[in-house]
Amino acid sequence: MDYFQKSIELHKKLGGKISTELKTDIKNSDDLSTVYSPWVAEPCRVIAKEEEKAYEYTMKGNTVAVISDGSAVLGLGNIGAKASLPVMEWKCALFKKFGWLNAIPIVLDTQDTEEIIKTVKNIAPWLGWINLEDISAPRCFEIENRLKAELNIPVFHDDQHGTAIVCLAGLINALKITGKDKEEIKVVVNGVWAAGVAITNLLVQYGIKDIVVVDSNGTIYAGREKLNPTKEMLTSITNTACVLDPGSKKCIKWGLEEAVIWRDVFIGVSVAWALTKEMVASMNDDPIIFALANPSPEIMPDIAKQAGAKIVATGRSDFPNQINNVLVFPGIFAGALKNRVSQITDNMKLHAAQALANAVENPSVDKIIPHPFDKGVADIIAESVK
Amino acid sequence: MDYFQKSIELHKKLGGKISTELKTDIKNSDDLSTVYSPWVAEPCRVIAKEEEKAYEYTMKGNTVAVISDGSAVLGLGNIGAKASLPVMEWKCALFKKFGWLNAIPIVLDTQDTEEIIKTVKNIAPWLGWINLEDISAPRCFEIENRLKAELNIPVFHDDQHGTAIVCLAGLINALKITGKDKEEIKVVVNGVWAAGVAITNLLVQYGIKDIVVVDSNGTIYAGREKLNPTKEMLTSITNTACVLDPGSKKCIKWGLEEAVIWRDVFIGVSVAWALTKEMVASMNDDPIIFALANPSPEIMPDIAKQAGAKIVATGRSDFPNQINNVLVFPGIFAGALKNRVSQITDNMKLHAAQALANAVENPSVDKIIPHPFDKGVADIIAESVK
Repeated sequence: MDYFQKSIELHKKLGGKISTELKTDIKNSDDLSTVYSPWVAEPCRVIAKEEEKAYEYTMKGNTVAVISDGSAVLGLGNIGAKASLPVMEWKCALFKKFGWLNAIPIVLDTQDTEEIIKTVKNIAPWLGWINLEDISAPRCFEIENRLKAELNIPVFHDDQHGTAIVCLAGLINALKITGKDKEEIKVVVNGVWAAGVAITNLLVQYGIKDIVVVDSNGTIYAGREKLNPTKEMLTSITNTACVLDPGSKKCIKWGLEEAVIWRDVFIGVSVAWALTKEMVASMNDDPIIFALANPSPEIMPDIAKQAGAKIVATGRSDFPNQINNVLVFPGIFAGALKNRVSQITDNMKLHAAQALANAVENPSVDKIIPHPFDKGVADIIAESVK
Repeated sequence: MDYFQKSIELHKKLGGKISTELKTDIKNSDDLSTVYSPWVAEPCRVIAKEEEKAYEYTMKGNTVAVISDGSAVLGLGNIGAKASLPVMEWKCALFKKFGWLNAIPIVLDTQDTEEIIKTVKNIAPWLGWINLEDISAPRCFEIENRLKAELNIPVFHDDQHGTAIVCLAGLINALKITGKDKEEIKVVVNGVWAAGVAITNLLVQYGIKDIVVVDSNGTIYAGREKLNPTKEMLTSITNTACVLDPGSKKCIKWGLEEAVIWRDVFIGVSVAWALTKEMVASMNDDPIIFALANPSPEIMPDIAKQAGAKIVATGRSDFPNQINNVLVFPGIFAGALKNRVSQITDNMKLHAAQALANAVENPSVDKIIPHPFDKGVADIIAESVK
């Protein structure tokens, strides 16, 4: 039986990857009176007077919603709400497995930004935390920012921030191994969807000074035509030392082929096979390649190595150095719920990345970040949130 | 420690009455590949092509949402979303305990009819069934009817239909015991909120011909001023043989005191202490009293008995004959999900009530309906849905 068939059979057998269970058995009328009528009225009355008590007396204190509109699911694209459900259930299962949190998959029958915001706000009272998942860019930025501003519970778009934290953790160790300095290195980020934007922002926060960002149309720079607001924002923090056209005094637009030359680090969150052997060879010595497109990376690790790459990371579990969000989201949510923080700040993300990098005892070219099944990773991340 | 304190302590200890759990463990990278990337893509692709497969491959096939806006919670009234959560969690726990279904409590931060409808429609893709709970009348009628019409999954307002089914089941056995005939009896229903309307409708469907409905303002009849649309509808099926005013030729408005005289059955879904000893004494011989207000009934069972009541039922678990929705909702949802019915019809409700009545082997004045912990009740109800 091949893997596809195996996955179908498992999904069919389980009928959903998570279930809800009672935390206390209800054995007789006395139990029924305590958990329900008439005595349940008492916690209701207390919460009615003091809303915060919902964190103590109900599941609000340990519950995450994994919310998606099915618009940007894995490499499958816009497959809609119902078809995205197996992925959201998986995510919920991992929240439980690695973060001991209750997580509920909520997939939405709308892809309208305003309607998504309204719907999520309407269902927020029973939730401790909102994890946005697989919502396409640039809508995901608006949705996350608005929900952050308008709700008093943490909102986290994992495709952005989870990916950015693991990516930075890997990069911290990769720099250590190659002896490169964060203030000196030259980075190119290929792909300006959710992950690419968040990675770029976090690298800048970390203190990396020279980043060039490339979309399918070429490098992004101040003055390039028809940039959306997110890309416009990126022009102020990236590609600030571009090659100027002597005539117009504007940056010259390069393709990826030119943009990677003499760079130290390539981070691809783009599409399969975007990076060629020749491009790797054109980079600085000991280049670091993060080819994170899934399931097919921008370049295969063995090809990149042949072309001179010192360290290669991918999104896949069948190669070393998997940049996997599961290293971060269970722990960061558990820590945030425990410490009742209302927002994940850039500072917390930097701490989490550093803690994750430190969790690898002896970093090597084939082990720049922990493995998902390494013990204690979620605890380390949860601790770092403080 | 008193019961109030006991309930608070339990809620605090549990931090929510339900949790989410993995249905299969994730032990290693191979498991991770099967439940997640890359192989989870396969069930996603299948569902994208054929939506119905979501019932097989995801939790949709066995998941109920218990949805409330916190506007009419127990006897507590409009306490809002967060404060209603302990009740909704309880309900979810009972779905699991008695119906083996996953149930998620979703409490809403809006009490606007249109917003509730929109929000519920937006979150429907992952749900097998929607159970509306503790939403105040008359908004609950509009919300339920619209969702029924606009969604293709079953929508059930348990405060209405669950109560009506259990109530009819109890009445069927009460009539058997007292030898009263459904076509001859005179019924008075006191209280015209969600439960009162649904009970009246189901009794009419069952074949009871003479029902008088009373709200806080008196009897409801054709031509009474300022009736809302629901009450207006009731005038065509109840109080059709009212006493006419000789001058105006309109029905004379009676208070409950006059309306109960010579009636065989009193069904109260109203407020504490609404029914006096004297009113019971004014009814026909062997009157049947369902005093369902919670936690304090319309009349205490011992007082009603002293005044001549033959059979008394209440909503409480500390008296015999508890009219408890838990006898119905787990089974009816389980049966409907199993048989993939898209709506619960009046016919199904009548079948469920009859099956529940039949489940009592030897009905007696103190046992007109099963006890929640009697074995097999949910199965009997589930079977009746076919």
